[in-house]
Amino acid sequence: MTADSFHPPVRTLMGPGPSDVNPRILEALSRPTIGHLDPAFVAMMDEMKDLLRYAFRTGYELAMPVSAPGSAGMETCFVNLVSPGDTVVVCQNGVFGGRMKENVERCGATPVMVEDEWGRAVDANKVEDALKAHPEARVLAFVHAETSTGAISDASTLAELARRHDCLTIVDTVTSLGGSPLEVGGWGLDAVYSGTQKCLSCVPGLSPVTFSERAVEAVKARKTKVQSWFMDLNLVLGYWGGGGKRAYHHTAPVNTLYALHEALVILQEEGIEASWKRHRDNHLALRAGLEAMGLSFVVPEDERLPQLNAVGIPEGVDDAAVRARLLEDYSLEIGAGLGPMAGKIWRIGLMGFASNRRNVLSCLGALDAVLSDMGAPIESGVAVEAASRVFAG
Amino acid sequence: MTADSFHPPVRTLMGPGPSDVNPRILEALSRPTIGHLDPAFVAMMDEMKDLLRYAFRTGYELAMPVSAPGSAGMETCFVNLVSPGDTVVVCQNGVFGGRMKENVERCGATPVMVEDEWGRAVDANKVEDALKAHPEARVLAFVHAETSTGAISDASTLAELARRHDCLTIVDTVTSLGGSPLEVGGWGLDAVYSGTQKCLSCVPGLSPVTFSERAVEAVKARKTKVQSWFMDLNLVLGYWGGGGKRAYHHTAPVNTLYALHEALVILQEEGIEASWKRHRDNHLALRAGLEAMGLSFVVPEDERLPQLNAVGIPEGVDDAAVRARLLEDYSLEIGAGLGPMAGKIWRIGLMGFASNRRNVLSCLGALDAVLSDMGAPIESGVAVEAASRVFAG
Repeated sequence: MTADSFHPPVRTLMGPGPSDVNPRILEALSRPTIGHLDPAFVAMMDEMKDLLRYAFRTGYELAMPVSAPGSAGMETCFVNLVSPGDTVVVCQNGVFGGRMKENVERCGATPVMVEDEWGRAVDANKVEDALKAHPEARVLAFVHAETSTGAISDASTLAELARRHDCLTIVDTVTSLGGSPLEVGGWGLDAVYSGTQKCLSCVPGLSPVTFSERAVEAVKARKTKVQSWFMDLNLVLGYWGGGGKRAYHHTAPVNTLYALHEALVILQEEGIEASWKRHRDNHLALRAGLEAMGLSFVVPEDERLPQLNAVGIPEGVDDAAVRARLLEDYSLEIGAGLGPMAGKIWRIGLMGFASNRRNVLSCLGALDAVLSDMGAPIESGVAVEAASRVFAG
Repeated sequence: MTADSFHPPVRTLMGPGPSDVNPRILEALSRPTIGHLDPAFVAMMDEMKDLLRYAFRTGYELAMPVSAPGSAGMETCFVNLVSPGDTVVVCQNGVFGGRMKENVERCGATPVMVEDEWGRAVDANKVEDALKAHPEARVLAFVHAETSTGAISDASTLAELARRHDCLTIVDTVTSLGGSPLEVGGWGLDAVYSGTQKCLSCVPGLSPVTFSERAVEAVKARKTKVQSWFMDLNLVLGYWGGGGKRAYHHTAPVNTLYALHEALVILQEEGIEASWKRHRDNHLALRAGLEAMGLSFVVPEDERLPQLNAVGIPEGVDDAAVRARLLEDYSLEIGAGLGPMAGKIWRIGLMGFASNRRNVLSCLGALDAVLSDMGAPIESGVAVEAASRVFAG
């Protein structure tokens, strides 16, 4: 075989991530590679830690990107904080709580599951019951923003409960970081991981994490070695840790780190509260359009993530055919449902750079055209106008 | 704090990696991001598997990049093939054999170490003795090209020994892939991992791996779950595996995969044997220059990697000061020694795009100037000419 250079089509990314990447970030990505121990690079790393603290709203010393995607950020939290024989209370209200359970089991620990309906927030009362019933638990794990359903949970209340029961929290903020209010320091979350390809609009491949001082102490006090060499924070911090000499651990993904730095600079320029507001405003317009069309949201209003809009697929409509038409005719990507929600919902992302008025209107227009053409039971020709009215105020 | 965009200095990268990245690859890296399940992306993934088979010289079905740096590629091999209670024979002749030992231990298995002097190839006789003494061993792990010392080992002979003792091989080819003869299929290596930032001249962040059919069978036949969720090939192959539908596992590092694809296209255009020859030719010229200067190679000639030249630091010369001068005055990065070789050797890489005549000459000129200026006991003013004579043939 002879292969040629790959030239990707230009898409509009309104699925659950990756989201549209800001061209500034793509340009930063392609800057000349330098060594991962170059003094110029090390200075950039230090600056990035401050920028991550800004994004996470925390003063925690440990704030750094794991050199792999969000799932590795999740695993970094579990393998460092969970030891064989431990009990971990895990909340599941979508795909990612299930992945947390897998992580707990693979650490040789016992998960105690708190299950909520997919599409709903985590129920704090059930969590409290589980913590009371399992006084031996030392970790509570939950997803702040469930990417599989578009539901947001009350991380502040859950963290408060965890503290009261002497548990550390492991919190998934992959889809919330930069898009929804998240106060890692103010809420006292302990081990928090995120992704780069959602509301930061950066390319995928890194997982920002931040750990509270008590979480770091727990890692240092472990009696058994962390089962992953690659993710062992005791080693990784020799490279990312503050002060003194940087020790080689692994070769950092230099260019992707340029991109994340640029994404965080852009977030700081906009201001994180302005970013949260933009995500909210564009969601309200998209929602007006979707509802005018007759589509219904899966998640109750006060548990809804503005950056990830999960809507039910109308009766009789062919899920895959609609998404294929959107991709082929409009170069527009929206997301399918996962697990039990496959074929039942679409997930429409408005994340980061993709959260803009142009995308709201063009997505509604494309969806309207494709669904009407396929004879779907929707109200045609009203969605774009409904959204425009919201923008007009 | 307010951070600005980061603009890296333009370096010449002649350390142990990352090496200079071909501008074609940086451009590919910055192409528009698309979804990790986009049909266009999936077609690119399939093509990449063929390109990896070309680079590894194998027909193995499993050939894919792990979505994280080389150390995660190493860990992927160990966590999938090693189970608690296993015995693994590990060859150590540098830093990376030690890391393999760590991996074995963290899998709950017992490493049997075969130690060789740093700077020497792995001694096949000692390996045979260890395999005979440990008939319970089922895996032999070794480093083909030791990045910490510049020594290459006879992977073909070691693999043959392993087969004779009913062991699978785990082989580190991080620094050899693309730069030195490597015949994964022909030699019958079983679980092979590499990096992107050495002789492929791609940005760091991915680890190409390839597994023989019998290695894949061993993974499928495991009685315990792989301890890492992120690296569990049973799951990862749902996304990267051949045929049928791609299942979401993690969000692939889309843009870095564009870059790797381009790097592999470039390798195919040059031809892998031509690439091996280029690495060898440039090494011979650099070597002539270094030896004319009076510097000595650490590794005996027939165990020497052409792409990573480890030379002793002359008596009384300040290692760090020389490297700092090269970086500041010539924007040239060469590598320091690791572990017991810190302060005793320099590692001069001629890898991938960085393996060219211009780099050979400018590196020799810069080293000559800096060492002379610092009063080092070298022969001044002869290195560049010695290398030029080799190029002139």
